[in-house]
Amino acid sequence: MKNELLTELRRIVGDDWVVSDATLIESYLVDVTALPVRPTPGNDVVVVKPANPEEISAILRLANENLIPVVPRGGGTGCVGAAVPTRGGIVLSLERLDRILEVDRDNLMVVGEGGATLEKMLKEVEAADLLFPPHPGDEGAQLGGLVACNAGGTRAVKYGVVRQYVKGLEVVLPTGEIVTMGGKLLKNNTGLDLMHLMIDSEGSLGIITKVTFRLYPRFGATATIIISFEDRHAAIKAVPKILQTGVIPLALEYVERDVIEISAKHLGMHWPAAKGNAHLITIITGSSEDDVYQQTSDVLKVCESLGVVDTVMAETREEQADILKIRSELYPVLKPQVSDVLDMAIPPAQIAVFLDMVDEIARKYDTRIITYGHAGDGNLHPHLPMELFERGQLDEVKKEVYSAAAELGGVITAEHGVGKIRLKEVPLCIDAKSIELMRGIKRLFDPNDILNPGTAIP
Amino acid sequence: MKNELLTELRRIVGDDWVVSDATLIESYLVDVTALPVRPTPGNDVVVVKPANPEEISAILRLANENLIPVVPRGGGTGCVGAAVPTRGGIVLSLERLDRILEVDRDNLMVVGEGGATLEKMLKEVEAADLLFPPHPGDEGAQLGGLVACNAGGTRAVKYGVVRQYVKGLEVVLPTGEIVTMGGKLLKNNTGLDLMHLMIDSEGSLGIITKVTFRLYPRFGATATIIISFEDRHAAIKAVPKILQTGVIPLALEYVERDVIEISAKHLGMHWPAAKGNAHLITIITGSSEDDVYQQTSDVLKVCESLGVVDTVMAETREEQADILKIRSELYPVLKPQVSDVLDMAIPPAQIAVFLDMVDEIARKYDTRIITYGHAGDGNLHPHLPMELFERGQLDEVKKEVYSAAAELGGVITAEHGVGKIRLKEVPLCIDAKSIELMRGIKRLFDPNDILNPGTAIP
Repeated sequence: MKNELLTELRRIVGDDWVVSDATLIESYLVDVTALPVRPTPGNDVVVVKPANPEEISAILRLANENLIPVVPRGGGTGCVGAAVPTRGGIVLSLERLDRILEVDRDNLMVVGEGGATLEKMLKEVEAADLLFPPHPGDEGAQLGGLVACNAGGTRAVKYGVVRQYVKGLEVVLPTGEIVTMGGKLLKNNTGLDLMHLMIDSEGSLGIITKVTFRLYPRFGATATIIISFEDRHAAIKAVPKILQTGVIPLALEYVERDVIEISAKHLGMHWPAAKGNAHLITIITGSSEDDVYQQTSDVLKVCESLGVVDTVMAETREEQADILKIRSELYPVLKPQVSDVLDMAIPPAQIAVFLDMVDEIARKYDTRIITYGHAGDGNLHPHLPMELFERGQLDEVKKEVYSAAAELGGVITAEHGVGKIRLKEVPLCIDAKSIELMRGIKRLFDPNDILNPGTAIP
Repeated sequence: MKNELLTELRRIVGDDWVVSDATLIESYLVDVTALPVRPTPGNDVVVVKPANPEEISAILRLANENLIPVVPRGGGTGCVGAAVPTRGGIVLSLERLDRILEVDRDNLMVVGEGGATLEKMLKEVEAADLLFPPHPGDEGAQLGGLVACNAGGTRAVKYGVVRQYVKGLEVVLPTGEIVTMGGKLLKNNTGLDLMHLMIDSEGSLGIITKVTFRLYPRFGATATIIISFEDRHAAIKAVPKILQTGVIPLALEYVERDVIEISAKHLGMHWPAAKGNAHLITIITGSSEDDVYQQTSDVLKVCESLGVVDTVMAETREEQADILKIRSELYPVLKPQVSDVLDMAIPPAQIAVFLDMVDEIARKYDTRIITYGHAGDGNLHPHLPMELFERGQLDEVKKEVYSAAAELGGVITAEHGVGKIRLKEVPLCIDAKSIELMRGIKRLFDPNDILNPGTAIP
């Protein structure tokens, strides 16, 4: 990068906040994308750490004048390479905008800066005896990133994804204007909804510097049940029957025994469900213990006629935490053997059909594709094994899995996003005209294509 | 309209479905906007009734070639003139696309055509023992219109607005392409979210021909309680306290006694709450009667310390229906004396402050501005009386009320939309750059400005 540019950046944010030493910026060049598919960062990268929206605005104006790419960086917890600066340029870290500004109990809202972590926000929200309902896995994620990627997680079946909780944003547009969208408002129909366009734009339309989320009261009680079936079709058929009882569980996760036991073993723990091969991890929440008890019996009653072979109920905090620990360690445990983790959304009732299609593809390529996920909301994560990458078959298999999802009315990404590694597969589920419109919107917001270029939009 | 054009339209939809006789099209030129502010329709209007998306596409291509405005028409239940063809041209009625295509119990989704009424959909959903949670007032609204206007209603406090339930759309773009967005999917992060941009675009970015909504199980039990306070500040202060108990009511409506009694009297009915001037109509739903009972006592307990002067509990279906009848007839009863009904969204905890500001404005203009609304979600409807229109003070007063809302962090429309009558007030709460972006998006979708021109975007 030219010296004059570095000088200018130092003038904007102060000398301490412009970092270009290769050893110091290493961790800013990657995210948690599986290694075989993680994009390679560009060579000429400088990390800039502004303190406020005004400095971000000045950086973006400078970048426009000099046609330098700017990649916004949150917690780096994404898994599709969206935060990797593939074209070099400026990595704009939000880490100094890290304050939770307000937990507003009267309006049931929390306001935080774009670089505050989810962990920090959850602590302050809990301290106020309130609840932020969704729970995307990694609490190192930052608020701006949660919105830019419309994070999902296990609780979407009852509470929806992050989009549903975003009520207001402050955004620095690629051209430098600082704008406010929405507010502490539960309804807003004033003009086209630019706020909802910003959600899930993966840092390509603006940098989110402030977020207002809706909060809810905490639930009175919780129970976690593992409902076991002999085979996956029986388990998946039970999902709509459970939902039709009137009980919407907080989470309804699908795992197969041999897979979850890998995680348990790795942790030196014990998977408590002894029978059956196909398990539904069901978390039920309610206004009181009685309410949870009632809901649980409704669920178990309907399952009786559906071929359940066993149910394990965890009531204490510890027992429930153990089950979730084993579930949430699955990906880290499997990751070394995995070349890419997919993220299909399909109609929930089609899950078993889709799993069979994936098994068929695996057989064809003489491998195993471990798949588990959020059964209640039709979001599955097929794990493509390392051997497919080594054999040069990764792209081929990926395309077959994507096509299977598209055939069932699904899309290629439910909660991870497109990032930089799924661009070429988007046309499998989005038509050419819609892609043309997305490109037009990008040009409108970012005429010089400086903000996170080559991300989200094919 | 030129004869060749009429001939061409008849060729597309068939002779029976092109109507230009003035007496037959009268009802297609208006919506339910209050008369003093309702826009005047253009002179040269033809009503066209296509049968499917392909015919709609052909009409839009023809309109582009001839630069003729096309105004999509749903149930005509809007109240900001969005469906009024102010520039003449084609009124494109969706009335023949009126089928509910599927209630999918396994995926908890309903799929219907853009011109099917809410009433029809609710019937089929109920017959399948399921629930469409939001309830925008007028069941004559059509599915496409519900989405295009992001309808709200009384149940938003617990269940959110229509946006939250839209999972898939089929849309005919202004340039004639038929595209699909989303599907029976609970999560979808594939590219920029054009579906959410279409929601609340008021027919200016595309014509919605098919909708997929998420459904829920029905609630087990319901109770309606009128909680009465001596004054509005006490009532509004109770709202966050109620929500903090952990109970989120289905509806939490604010009315003042002298106003609600006008409606009761008009209906020959009796408003059951005898004491206090400020009432919260609270509907509580739960998984069972026990659950509702528990929630109700939690709410009443917290209200005890907040200056409640009386509570009236309606448990039977009839008693509950009576209360809602009196509430829902308020607007029709008041309408003849009203020149414009506003639709502010403000932070819910600011409602009492806002009501005082409105009273202050009313005093200044020596009038009364009746205001009631959805207290739980900060959505109020100030009714500007006819005398302000007659005195030529309507615009002046409106601007003062809007400014009061903006001062509290609110916006000019919560659920009604901008339509054709609120365009010039949008800049009171949206910045110039955002408006420029909205205009750019409109140009991108509709380069010839033929689809519902002069609506939603200032």
